[in-house]
Amino acid sequence: MQVDIGNALAEVATPGIPREALDRLDDRVAAAHERIEAGRASDEHGYATLNQPANVDVDAIQAAVEPFDDCENLVNVGIGGSALGAATISAALDSDVDAYYLDNVDPKWVADHLETIDLSKTALNVVSKSGMTAETLSNFLVVREAMEAAGVDWTERTWVTTGPEGNLRDLAEKHDLPSLPVPDGVPGRFSVLSTVGLAAAALQGHDIEAILDGARDADDALAPSLFDSPAYAYGAVNYALDQRGAGINVQLPYAESLETYAEWYSQLWAESVGKDGVGQTPVRALGATDQHSQLQLYRAGPHDKMVTFIRPQEREDTTIPETDLEGLSYLGGLTLGELIDAEFEATEASLANAGLPNVRIEIDRVDERAIGELLYSMEAATILAGELYNVDAFVQPAVEWGKKATRGLLGGGDFEEADEVAEKTELTIE
Amino acid sequence: MQVDIGNALAEVATPGIPREALDRLDDRVAAAHERIEAGRASDEHGYATLNQPANVDVDAIQAAVEPFDDCENLVNVGIGGSALGAATISAALDSDVDAYYLDNVDPKWVADHLETIDLSKTALNVVSKSGMTAETLSNFLVVREAMEAAGVDWTERTWVTTGPEGNLRDLAEKHDLPSLPVPDGVPGRFSVLSTVGLAAAALQGHDIEAILDGARDADDALAPSLFDSPAYAYGAVNYALDQRGAGINVQLPYAESLETYAEWYSQLWAESVGKDGVGQTPVRALGATDQHSQLQLYRAGPHDKMVTFIRPQEREDTTIPETDLEGLSYLGGLTLGELIDAEFEATEASLANAGLPNVRIEIDRVDERAIGELLYSMEAATILAGELYNVDAFVQPAVEWGKKATRGLLGGGDFEEADEVAEKTELTIE
Repeated sequence: MQVDIGNALAEVATPGIPREALDRLDDRVAAAHERIEAGRASDEHGYATLNQPANVDVDAIQAAVEPFDDCENLVNVGIGGSALGAATISAALDSDVDAYYLDNVDPKWVADHLETIDLSKTALNVVSKSGMTAETLSNFLVVREAMEAAGVDWTERTWVTTGPEGNLRDLAEKHDLPSLPVPDGVPGRFSVLSTVGLAAAALQGHDIEAILDGARDADDALAPSLFDSPAYAYGAVNYALDQRGAGINVQLPYAESLETYAEWYSQLWAESVGKDGVGQTPVRALGATDQHSQLQLYRAGPHDKMVTFIRPQEREDTTIPETDLEGLSYLGGLTLGELIDAEFEATEASLANAGLPNVRIEIDRVDERAIGELLYSMEAATILAGELYNVDAFVQPAVEWGKKATRGLLGGGDFEEADEVAEKTELTIE
Repeated sequence: MQVDIGNALAEVATPGIPREALDRLDDRVAAAHERIEAGRASDEHGYATLNQPANVDVDAIQAAVEPFDDCENLVNVGIGGSALGAATISAALDSDVDAYYLDNVDPKWVADHLETIDLSKTALNVVSKSGMTAETLSNFLVVREAMEAAGVDWTERTWVTTGPEGNLRDLAEKHDLPSLPVPDGVPGRFSVLSTVGLAAAALQGHDIEAILDGARDADDALAPSLFDSPAYAYGAVNYALDQRGAGINVQLPYAESLETYAEWYSQLWAESVGKDGVGQTPVRALGATDQHSQLQLYRAGPHDKMVTFIRPQEREDTTIPETDLEGLSYLGGLTLGELIDAEFEATEASLANAGLPNVRIEIDRVDERAIGELLYSMEAATILAGELYNVDAFVQPAVEWGKKATRGLLGGGDFEEADEVAEKTELTIE
């Protein structure tokens, strides 16, 4: 993986980072790296994330999914960090096993899935560290009932990924389900390179050792200077541009298979640094499609944003047939890959030309190794950013208010937050 | 459709709009409405959009798709406004015809589609006003070749939607293809309620008269005051919050079937008001899923954003089975709809509690009529916002630079923009 921050410099963009400022920031990167390494050394909460590639028990993962090696479908019931990492790998890599992520409680959408998926050929993974996540456990109950209605023994089709106690752990023990632990010290959004993200990949037939090899390469590339470490370069530049007014960071992969990656990154970044009144807002986009949707705004709108271009350097390609279409003969004989890559470079240059800061991330190709490298690098980038922002990257206290209010509204206890829902200030136009 | 702007008021949120400021803004809304009505009266470019529901030729649409009434798949080759409107309707409404939108030139993704879709049972719609869009024409050439390779007569399976001249018009004449005109005066991103957006809906068996009825209801609801017009209330509040620091507008539908709607809105808004250094950035999200991804940032991060909640008031629902799971008995016997609606209200209240401005849009249910009403209302909201921002909402000049650069890079002519690509400032860390 390589990161090109040239278009984030003040000589190109406004906001932009003066080279001297980057040098000064590098002192903070060195200090942050030292803090991160100390956290890793003692397996401290959150920092332990970066030790996962060395510590994860691949054999346990393979054993947990082995009973399902005849399945045609994976249904993953989990939400947030219990879905997005695995979903990112599923979307990136081809598999004969179709994966469905039930990460929402939209009733019609859930019912539509259960109507179309052959549950007798499905492996069901239920993922919740606490065993208490309302959306996940509700969906589990619905899926379990659908299996029973279809004459499928759910206890033969299910494994759980959960903490040492709680509802899912109890179920696993009671019904002798395969189970995997959620690792200690690894917040959900950082869990892709653990049991939480890798079991689905193993079930889908992906080479999880190769994913981990990529992650270990990214680990080896961490260094006490942003000029020596692609991951830290990215985290530091995001922070430095945010400080200078780029409060938005558009994730713009030029590969359909990386569209879910942009969602994963957005959770990772938003929940980690979005606190104490700070935090850059990640925005999910897709190249080349969004050139015809968002580029006008990016190029001609306010300079409140940066754009992160992401692409594989190699692609499986498709040739454009020769053509006598008027004015388009130049396309004939090119490949779609050449077209999308030219659009990538042209769009990048068009933003630089307009002085909008942007960064280029390139991976070798979309395969196991490169995905592992990318995911690990972004975890490290985010942890570094947490140090630079001076926030606790590993907590998400702000989501509790809504959880209590929801529970109160549904009769799950007395919560003053639920009372506040009824007091909404209304000004309705109809 | 109703719009509740209570949580956008200064008494609730920061930034927020004082009620007196809303009253003053309403004078500008009245003037803008007058300008819009004058533009409509003379079918002026852009403003003509709002006349589409009255003017669109439904019979011509039905006739164009009638030859394909036996198809099982729709493949729509078009990008930006030539895809997103139709895709929004496809995603919102159930159909026996599967729709695929080839709106990107990712080579592997295109090839994967062509491998899995039965082209002999496919209707192909090629959509480009100019007949010159590089991505669209390239994909058309690839799809046509795939049809030929599969022994499918593409001239029997294709209709075009295009302007009065150009490559697609020529092809239609040469091969006697069904064709539909792209309406005059309607920019691509505003074309959903025209031939461009409605033909795919007709092919999929949707009641396009009902869609237009909904749009006409929304038209009837336009009025010279934001307090009388939900569409204008929304456009005006977005503008007023942006002026006060909410440069980001998160689109947060609580329905999977409206996820593509958020993409459509994002194009509509971004290309229309993103110019001359201004324009609020739309962000696509999804409830309840993103509560576990973005809510931490929204509630505890910078107050540089507003959130737009969107939901249907009625849903097809699914009951959660009774359960003895510890601590979760309150969920048993509820419905997933009750759960997601409680989460909607709780999340909305949680942002209000944190002083983050938000707006609630409610539609009756996700059906033809309500979708037509919503889409039309957002077009009107965006046009109104163009007046308030004092920009030309109907042009997108900033995308030209990159198009020229792309063309130059691919040998399609001499363009100085292409030279600038080679001069990139690099600072690469690997």
